[in-house]
Amino acid sequence: MANAPLLKLIEHFRALPGIGQKTAVRLAYHVLDMSVEDAKSLSNAIVEAKEKIGYCKVCFNLSDRSPCEICDSSKRDGKIICVVEEPQDVAAMEKTREFRGLYHVLHGAISPLEGVGPNDIRIKELVTRIAESDVKEVIIATNPNVEGEATAMYIAKLLKPAGIKVTRIGSGLPVGGNLEYADEVTLSKALENRREI
Amino acid sequence: MANAPLLKLIEHFRALPGIGQKTAVRLAYHVLDMSVEDAKSLSNAIVEAKEKIGYCKVCFNLSDRSPCEICDSSKRDGKIICVVEEPQDVAAMEKTREFRGLYHVLHGAISPLEGVGPNDIRIKELVTRIAESDVKEVIIATNPNVEGEATAMYIAKLLKPAGIKVTRIGSGLPVGGNLEYADEVTLSKALENRREI
Repeated sequence: MANAPLLKLIEHFRALPGIGQKTAVRLAYHVLDMSVEDAKSLSNAIVEAKEKIGYCKVCFNLSDRSPCEICDSSKRDGKIICVVEEPQDVAAMEKTREFRGLYHVLHGAISPLEGVGPNDIRIKELVTRIAESDVKEVIIATNPNVEGEATAMYIAKLLKPAGIKVTRIGSGLPVGGNLEYADEVTLSKALENRREI
Repeated sequence: MANAPLLKLIEHFRALPGIGQKTAVRLAYHVLDMSVEDAKSLSNAIVEAKEKIGYCKVCFNLSDRSPCEICDSSKRDGKIICVVEEPQDVAAMEKTREFRGLYHVLHGAISPLEGVGPNDIRIKELVTRIAESDVKEVIIATNPNVEGEATAMYIAKLLKPAGIKVTRIGSGLPVGGNLEYADEVTLSKALENRREI
């Protein structure tokens, strides 16, 4: 195929996570099959999302405003903070409708193997945030794998001397699993069974 | 999540073929994680591909010009036309480097179950094209499934009275399979083993 714009589009799709060559080709041909309006609409949605959404300066979740809707809400309990690894995890938690506190997004987990240390994720910001507010409990909802557990232990050690209750989301999540893919019921259960660490 | 631009982007990704809710969410978050330049580049690639690529008026393959590079090439044998269902199939055929003739893209196959009749695909254009040129052989490379076979038989019946040799790509393709996903060797074999129908 000597269609440069098509090849370029295929390359762009291939660069997306979980998209291989065959899927990239399929998606590119689908785009060519779309109406011009639909293609433009998809194209605009990408730039718009990227331009309008940034990090909340309080919780570091993705939002189109800062502080974000959750941090800014009078209906949320500012005394409880749920710590998660990624913005996707906030979305997963919100779906349970069980948690009415605030969030803190670390943007990763401690992983010595991948060279990610405590200073590479938003732990410092969590400590500062807690020192400046009236937080009673921190629920650590990092993923139930090695990195998530290590991060949970690290944060617990930092916060407990300050007299803050630190809990870990409970069993219910399959070990080695991923918070993002858990169903609402499992996540609700995990939240309910949280234990102090 | 109350992030309208994010939700909108997820919806757009979901509308793509083979992309479910989880993948759409993952892709959308990936876009937010990209640099602004990369996001714009992806966005532009979509519009550019859509704007610059259209159908070749001769073979109905996708191309950034019309007649396309293949139809316009003096190195291709205009006496043989290979008939395929989709533009992707041309790309798959070209990869074999075995075929030096021209193509004709039907944009579908006859499927009474899905309400696709002979007039809904580019069969009429194929007949006109052959009548106006010096074609000796038509190789029908529609998919080896019910719809593809029906289409092959229909075209053969139309063209054979005009004294044109009509062949069908041979065994080598697994029955029920899809041309787009065949490897080059299998496709070469199928081309080599073509039989008159």
